[in-house]
Amino acid sequence: MKPHITLISLGVADLDASIRFYRDGLGLPLNDGPDGIAFFATGSTMLALYPRDKLAEDITLTNAEGSGFAGFALAHNVDSPDAVDATLAEAVAAGATLVKPGQKAFWGGYSGYFADPDGFYWEVAHNPFM
Amino acid sequence: MKPHITLISLGVADLDASIRFYRDGLGLPLNDGPDGIAFFATGSTMLALYPRDKLAEDITLTNAEGSGFAGFALAHNVDSPDAVDATLAEAVAAGATLVKPGQKAFWGGYSGYFADPDGFYWEVAHNPFM
Repeated sequence: MKPHITLISLGVADLDASIRFYRDGLGLPLNDGPDGIAFFATGSTMLALYPRDKLAEDITLTNAEGSGFAGFALAHNVDSPDAVDATLAEAVAAGATLVKPGQKAFWGGYSGYFADPDGFYWEVAHNPFM
Repeated sequence: MKPHITLISLGVADLDASIRFYRDGLGLPLNDGPDGIAFFATGSTMLALYPRDKLAEDITLTNAEGSGFAGFALAHNVDSPDAVDATLAEAVAAGATLVKPGQKAFWGGYSGYFADPDGFYWEVAHNPFM
C-alpha cells in the first residue's frame, strides 16, 4: 500500500448544514461533484461529507447508529499560537463547539480542539518544531 | 482556515498491534517520534495512532467509550481494479476484516472496504476518472 490517504469521509446528520459549516464558516473550497456528497479540495488528502446513513450503506453496514467517542480526530496546523486562538474562534463563530481552549501542549506547542456540528473533533495546533 | 488537514489521529486499543498492522502489514512508513504515539509518513496529511484513552484525554474528554459506527471512513486509491483486490487481500493477510469485497461502484469505479484492528473503515478504490 502506498503511503497516501486519498480521502477522509465524514458521515453527517445534515449535509446542507455541514456544507455551510465547512464552506461558509471555515472557508474550505467545495469542489463540483455529484449531488449528495460534498468534496472539499483540501490538498492531496480530500475531505468528503456524506449523509451518515449513505456512508454506512456504501460500507455495507446495516446500521449507521453509533454513540460516544468516535475514536478519532483531525488536526489542522497554523503558524502561531495567536492563529490557533483565531481559528478556534472562527470555528465557534461558524457553529462549532469549543472543546479545549488553546493552551500550551506537553509536546512544546500550543493547541486546542473544536467539535464540528456532528461532534467530530478537530485539533488546531501550532508546532514550533515543524 | 487553509484547506489542509495536517493529521488524522486514530485512537486504538493496542498501540503495538496497530503499529504492526500499519507498518508491517500494510507497509506504511513509521516516522521516528515520541513514545506512545505512532506517526506514519503518509504525505502532507499524516496518519497518527494513539492509545484511544490518551487521544480522548488530549481532547479533554472524560470518557473514551464509544460504540457502533464511528461515522467516518478513510480511502486509499490505487491504479486498477486488480490493485483494489490485491490491496484488500494484503490488508486481510495483515489482520484486517474484509467488509465489502471489491466490486463495481455506482460512480463508475471499483472499490471495496476493509476494517482495521479497531474497526476503522478503509475504502480501497480505483477511480478511472482520476
